[in-house]
Amino acid sequence: MSERINFDYGASTPIVPDVKQAMMAALDAGGNPSSVHQRGQQAKRLLTQARKQVASLINAKPEELYFTSCGTESNNWALRGLFAANTPPALRQLSGQERKGKHLIVSAIEHPSISLIARRLELDGAYVTILPVDREGCVSPGDLKAAMKPDTVLVSIMLANGEVGTIEPIHELAAIAHEQGALFHTDAIAAVGSIPVDVKALNVDALSLAADQFGGPQGAAALFVREGVRILPLLEGGGQEVGARSGTESLPAIVGMGIAAEIAQQGLPERIEQLSQLRDRLQDGLNQRIEGLRINGPSDIRRVARRGAPQPPAADDADSAARRGRMGCAATGPAEGDDEMHRRLPHNLHVCIDGVASEALVLGLDHAGIAVGLGSACNSKAMRPSHVLKAMGLTDEQAKGALVLTVGEPTTEDDIDRALEIIPVVVQRLRNVTALTAR
Amino acid sequence: MSERINFDYGASTPIVPDVKQAMMAALDAGGNPSSVHQRGQQAKRLLTQARKQVASLINAKPEELYFTSCGTESNNWALRGLFAANTPPALRQLSGQERKGKHLIVSAIEHPSISLIARRLELDGAYVTILPVDREGCVSPGDLKAAMKPDTVLVSIMLANGEVGTIEPIHELAAIAHEQGALFHTDAIAAVGSIPVDVKALNVDALSLAADQFGGPQGAAALFVREGVRILPLLEGGGQEVGARSGTESLPAIVGMGIAAEIAQQGLPERIEQLSQLRDRLQDGLNQRIEGLRINGPSDIRRVARRGAPQPPAADDADSAARRGRMGCAATGPAEGDDEMHRRLPHNLHVCIDGVASEALVLGLDHAGIAVGLGSACNSKAMRPSHVLKAMGLTDEQAKGALVLTVGEPTTEDDIDRALEIIPVVVQRLRNVTALTAR
Repeated sequence: MSERINFDYGASTPIVPDVKQAMMAALDAGGNPSSVHQRGQQAKRLLTQARKQVASLINAKPEELYFTSCGTESNNWALRGLFAANTPPALRQLSGQERKGKHLIVSAIEHPSISLIARRLELDGAYVTILPVDREGCVSPGDLKAAMKPDTVLVSIMLANGEVGTIEPIHELAAIAHEQGALFHTDAIAAVGSIPVDVKALNVDALSLAADQFGGPQGAAALFVREGVRILPLLEGGGQEVGARSGTESLPAIVGMGIAAEIAQQGLPERIEQLSQLRDRLQDGLNQRIEGLRINGPSDIRRVARRGAPQPPAADDADSAARRGRMGCAATGPAEGDDEMHRRLPHNLHVCIDGVASEALVLGLDHAGIAVGLGSACNSKAMRPSHVLKAMGLTDEQAKGALVLTVGEPTTEDDIDRALEIIPVVVQRLRNVTALTAR
Repeated sequence: MSERINFDYGASTPIVPDVKQAMMAALDAGGNPSSVHQRGQQAKRLLTQARKQVASLINAKPEELYFTSCGTESNNWALRGLFAANTPPALRQLSGQERKGKHLIVSAIEHPSISLIARRLELDGAYVTILPVDREGCVSPGDLKAAMKPDTVLVSIMLANGEVGTIEPIHELAAIAHEQGALFHTDAIAAVGSIPVDVKALNVDALSLAADQFGGPQGAAALFVREGVRILPLLEGGGQEVGARSGTESLPAIVGMGIAAEIAQQGLPERIEQLSQLRDRLQDGLNQRIEGLRINGPSDIRRVARRGAPQPPAADDADSAARRGRMGCAATGPAEGDDEMHRRLPHNLHVCIDGVASEALVLGLDHAGIAVGLGSACNSKAMRPSHVLKAMGLTDEQAKGALVLTVGEPTTEDDIDRALEIIPVVVQRLRNVTALTAR
């Protein structure tokens, strides 16, 4: 039997060997960064080093970065902590009933770690606007502008959707929030490591990221909070992370996150090129071979830009940063010579296949040696049409055969070509079964 | 230079080699337990296995155990989640002002991850009673009885204090809470792995534990919640841990916690014997060699019992469990033949040394090759007299020279004897400096 093919890099990326080695060393060294003696201070140095490495990946200052245990914690904390700390003090002392009137905006395609907290805050007296998305999963800056109110405290919109791959126009959206004096948080968990992410260019106040999405281990994540922005802690205790996030640091995982960040930063443009080529090969191949296949999310216009334009002159840093900030689905088109313009995550392919059910397809492909993702990768128990696809206007019937295929650095052209042989056969077999059952 | 001596096993225990190996294998295997395909299901099996191992260590059912990222998260969640879920629904819908009247009881020597949340709940409308402790750090069952009110929702008292080592009479305290219909949570983070901990014998509704206190890695901890007890989640999102604790599981750390639990369970009586003998050797030696040294916490009456009594007949399981439940400082004395009675953690020694400051002592000993703990091991930045010592009635002056010395399995008699040569010299040197400065 030939080797298994992994098209589920979106759920968890494999650990980079250097990351594993550094984690082992940290495990051996041991030590609690809060201890005053030598072993403790050595642990503290490892923590400082990792903070620098991760901050560098998103162009933040190390002191703007707080380590957490997972993306869910970062997102929960951002929403709860920013909302609570930035409700006017006069209102905070009033009772629950009287606090009503504090406004929060999120999009309809956020991860449950955002949407469920928005719901919880609503129960506690906030009022919440949920912004729609278009057929491609894009939030419209016009919609945000219309939704803003004088008492909007916080806007939270994801940088990229891990399911359909849509990259949102965060730079424009954050500017609209700031115009009205609101804070802007972005869940960048699916984006960091896959596309350039620069907190200064995006001009966000807070940003969530997780190590296991860019070659680091599970159990380490972070929240960037811009210097000067107030946030209340979610976890309280011994006062670690300058009091913002208590709890003994998970040092081996954090060290792994640091090394993974350093590696992710190296050769990102080449990796984007490599992965989007592989993804396009898979996409085009499936599109040709399977009837009744629908590709979701925005089409990626990267290649249009690169082909039509001459090589851009070496842009200075500010220009390049601004360009990154402009990236996203709502941009009207790439600037001339702009080869960094992306509207979809370069490694992501999301399809709906008529006449088959996702669950059967995932299991059938698994049996045939191919691992793919099902709807939201975060919860295999949620056997219902994805809220993201519903928000994009797909019917339950259309959303039924949804599949996420994500390529990674280990993916080869041979993997793609083998998968292009296997997937149509599995689809046909399942369709035959369905037809038989229906008769 | 001879090898360094570690007397700071309380801050973080060293990783057991088998634990490291299992973690490495889990890192290599990768996979997200929420994925439906083979790699995901393999990850899920690892998670199930670890849950069984950790549950077994505290005599819980696997489905009563929820993994978290650290002890602080377990404690924060227990207090917030149990309190919120068990406030009568009628009251929950009322505004902050009207909710006042819901009662919470904690002790004066809880870790900040409990006491700060109690404070936070108070700001949100709870009313909180803080129980005093006696000179040995013991909570009195009589005091709890007097503090109970008809509307007491929750009592949270730690099983053992990691600083002074006091073991609280949790079995008696929980019974008092239950008599009045309140829930009982215990922070057992400093206890699990060091003494037998049995949730059934203790009869608690919830219990916190953390892997890095029993040979496991940082980054994995758990909360036991007795079957049928309601708790609201602290982290919400993808619905992991049957919806009670969302967030991608930190699988390598959890696998490590499982193996560490299995190892911690093996030979615990022998380990207790070994560590308490080493601790006593250190205690007696320091007591003889340093004038103006005060030993804090209860004296450990284990040896009295063992020496005076014949070997007990093989007790049946229920008896032995009841005996474990009775362990703690408020017990009037050991039952005849009871060789498991402990009033202080067997590896713990807490002293105050006149005429020196803790910080200087920790640094001086570190320089001389001995790692010890300072006040609360969780936060080296808190350069103030420990709240535990203050609650025990020590003056600021007495508390100034506080030191925690914890022995571990790697500790040898030779380590102790070398330390007994070094520590008095360092103390004398510091006292000379202080005397000079004072002149």
